[in-house]
Amino acid sequence: MAAERDPEALAAARPLLTDLYQATMALGYWRAGRAREQAEFELFFRGCPFGGAFALAAGLRDCVRFLRAFRLRDADVQFLASVLPPDTDPAFFEYLRAVDCSDVTVRALPEGSLAFPGVPLLQVGGPLLVVQLLETPLLCLVGYASLIATNAARLRLIAGPEKRLWEMGLRRAQGPDGGLTASTYSYLGGFDGSSNVLAGQLRGVPVAGTLAHSFITSFLGTEVPPDPTLAPAAGQGPRVDLAARAEAWLDRVCAHLGLGVREPHRGERAAFVAYALAFPRAFQGLLDTYSVQRSGVPNFLAVALALGELGYRAVGVRLDSGDLLQQAQEIRRVFRTVSAQFQTPWLESISIAVSNNIGEEELARLAQEDSEVNVIGIGTSVVTCPRQPSLGCVYKLVSVGGQPRMKLTEDPGKQTLPGSKAAFRLLRADGGALAPDPDPDCGPGPGLPSSLQLCEPFPSLAESRAFAQLSLSHLSPEHKRLEQPAPYPVALSDKLRALVASLLARGSS
Amino acid sequence: MAAERDPEALAAARPLLTDLYQATMALGYWRAGRAREQAEFELFFRGCPFGGAFALAAGLRDCVRFLRAFRLRDADVQFLASVLPPDTDPAFFEYLRAVDCSDVTVRALPEGSLAFPGVPLLQVGGPLLVVQLLETPLLCLVGYASLIATNAARLRLIAGPEKRLWEMGLRRAQGPDGGLTASTYSYLGGFDGSSNVLAGQLRGVPVAGTLAHSFITSFLGTEVPPDPTLAPAAGQGPRVDLAARAEAWLDRVCAHLGLGVREPHRGERAAFVAYALAFPRAFQGLLDTYSVQRSGVPNFLAVALALGELGYRAVGVRLDSGDLLQQAQEIRRVFRTVSAQFQTPWLESISIAVSNNIGEEELARLAQEDSEVNVIGIGTSVVTCPRQPSLGCVYKLVSVGGQPRMKLTEDPGKQTLPGSKAAFRLLRADGGALAPDPDPDCGPGPGLPSSLQLCEPFPSLAESRAFAQLSLSHLSPEHKRLEQPAPYPVALSDKLRALVASLLARGSS
Repeated sequence: MAAERDPEALAAARPLLTDLYQATMALGYWRAGRAREQAEFELFFRGCPFGGAFALAAGLRDCVRFLRAFRLRDADVQFLASVLPPDTDPAFFEYLRAVDCSDVTVRALPEGSLAFPGVPLLQVGGPLLVVQLLETPLLCLVGYASLIATNAARLRLIAGPEKRLWEMGLRRAQGPDGGLTASTYSYLGGFDGSSNVLAGQLRGVPVAGTLAHSFITSFLGTEVPPDPTLAPAAGQGPRVDLAARAEAWLDRVCAHLGLGVREPHRGERAAFVAYALAFPRAFQGLLDTYSVQRSGVPNFLAVALALGELGYRAVGVRLDSGDLLQQAQEIRRVFRTVSAQFQTPWLESISIAVSNNIGEEELARLAQEDSEVNVIGIGTSVVTCPRQPSLGCVYKLVSVGGQPRMKLTEDPGKQTLPGSKAAFRLLRADGGALAPDPDPDCGPGPGLPSSLQLCEPFPSLAESRAFAQLSLSHLSPEHKRLEQPAPYPVALSDKLRALVASLLARGSS
Repeated sequence: MAAERDPEALAAARPLLTDLYQATMALGYWRAGRAREQAEFELFFRGCPFGGAFALAAGLRDCVRFLRAFRLRDADVQFLASVLPPDTDPAFFEYLRAVDCSDVTVRALPEGSLAFPGVPLLQVGGPLLVVQLLETPLLCLVGYASLIATNAARLRLIAGPEKRLWEMGLRRAQGPDGGLTASTYSYLGGFDGSSNVLAGQLRGVPVAGTLAHSFITSFLGTEVPPDPTLAPAAGQGPRVDLAARAEAWLDRVCAHLGLGVREPHRGERAAFVAYALAFPRAFQGLLDTYSVQRSGVPNFLAVALALGELGYRAVGVRLDSGDLLQQAQEIRRVFRTVSAQFQTPWLESISIAVSNNIGEEELARLAQEDSEVNVIGIGTSVVTCPRQPSLGCVYKLVSVGGQPRMKLTEDPGKQTLPGSKAAFRLLRADGGALAPDPDPDCGPGPGLPSSLQLCEPFPSLAESRAFAQLSLSHLSPEHKRLEQPAPYPVALSDKLRALVASLLARGSS
């Protein structure tokens, strides 16, 4: 890969975004005359997150962007010189100035692939010094992206295919880029989009948003808009004072619902009118700033019906507190009776959106069969992955100079598998659900090579999202189950088993 | 604040780093003729994180950088136009092009202050449209920074003042900027530094690092370094073949420890020699690639003693698996006997560093009185804050046009306190530990105003770090306790209580 100028990559993942020990080791390799030895590392995880049996591989596009732009600038080299020993040979820093990823090759699981423990997500080959330096940034770029994509895929499995899922966790993320990464990869994992405008601008993620409580509390009802009138949707006919029409409708709605006409909060109604004037074709109401049933609902209906007279169709409501499922049922019931009363059938099926700290358990409740909830906004629990906030990927040396290497620590959970590997996924004869083959030692013939060359054209984010859903649809239910699933068997070939045994016998020397 | 060019701020927190509803509300305010109304928002949290009774306020410097650079560029406005209704008045977009934060004022708790529930970390005043747009980025910039600083402060309290604590969680963070934020604010909260080189370069955080297992497994022991010799530390005398001297010392060390001279792994020893050639004044060994006691320790000692002959002092060892406390005791015992045997007293007190998924509980164990551990590296548990991965800050409208506003939702936990507030911290008469005053309704006289004007000079990160430790030292032990602490009382003044009562009585209208 040639280095190229890419301001976003330079900003988001600078070459010094790494642990200092990568630089100290670089000096060690260089001093030992080994900087250019050919080495291969593998990036993988040891256990699936969230107690599940699968993960989605993601972050590859960020890795590619990073690798293409990777080059130490003068300021970077000067900073390294300031933290390395003062008597370090200046020739080392000259060497660093010339380093880029032009001799690095990456094989990777396609973006959005199913991934399983021990199977490399990335295989990175190239000069020892360079591929060592890449460890931390690649782990950083792949780990969270894959974690969040997997989390989103789980939430999508819980929600089912019909509910619309929106990520809205930017304010709960680990800073700006944490939020951008979360928005991007929750979309890849199966969400419908995000509230994060930057994710729309930079990554093409669909974005959505309406209004917050602050908009509503900012109105007292005494404000006088410069122009309270609206033209009919079809463009024909005189402009109408929307606020006045909403007041007229409020009388009728309150009479029908048995509410006093002064109960609904006038500031809330003024806010709805103001929003409707700005978004006549996309009017939505946030119902729980004051009382939902005695204020939010009648005010919303008054404005929606006033808009309806002009040929506009309100698109939805949102709830952000209380028992979301139960309130959605009650609101739908009101919408149905009002719709019948005023012969406005479009009102019946208006979208009901909910949010408020929704996790896996509450999502399952909101997705149950008779739920009237249509849209679910999830913030904290998708972005922070509270059940397991890191995937724990590792990046391990598997060969140098063509010779397999292995870590033989006394902690068996931290041993590694030596040598460059090829991962194959075995399909059942019916071509359907992915399941383990009874004999995993077959050759590449019937298998499906699960890696691609980096020089292939990169799929779009939406294509990767579709690929992830397709891959998941092929995974058999026993592995897709979210609680206590059957582990997906990853078997070693006879050849690899023999290599491990021989290295163990020799103490890896 | 004047807008200024700051490439880092532009990259890290672009103006569209916000929820779309901020932009739709902006249009709503603009259409209602209210864009320039003076409004005030407060940013605060409702509960202290991690079951504790305090938090540290942080992220202010990132907010200032963001606000100074805040300006919608043409591409930003064009993107907004693409996601807002096509018939939106073009004058709105013209208005957006001119928006900056020159009319915004921010009052804030000083960086590193103690913060308590309900007390504003930021008070943001300015034109309604602008201060609304700032909600999401400010929450994003303050929330995680304060969470991580608080988490680091807790870990520092557990570790005590003597242990050196290093953050090394970049690879487990929410992408590049998550890592940078974690490194910056764990330092502010009381860590000694970070492995993250970029945090050193951009933020001045002390950085440290040595070597990983991959460096060690990359050596077989058959490699021939271009120059295996080293000059004595004092610069006088002939160069010495370090590998050969290490082999000679290995014989003596193994004899002393009762080990066969072929037991220590030769590749590991070659790696130590290579590292020592590059870092003769900062030699450290990572001991657990193979067997700690039968390979890592004797190999380290052989190289350290060979260096010692030349006048160099090895600085430390690191362990990354197994029972860290127990191994540290054993290693210290070996260092003592070897030190006595070979009359190398400097060897006795060599630093022992440990890492491997250390959380609060393990840290308490490693910090116990007779522990031989000197340096503790913490990654995942400081960066991801697994016990509570988000602080849950909110940003609430408290006044518009000088009139107090309040959210009167049916969920009492989500009600807000109206009007612009001044927070006072009450000191005990002895000037010592911070504790609640029996009468919180005193005026500003005896209290300590806890906010500053943004135009004051900004303290350095190290100064804020010192301020945080000083603030914590003044907090009384009952509030500083990490489990089941006494809540720090935050009381409302008589005037504010009366205002809340009157707004509740009027339904906030």
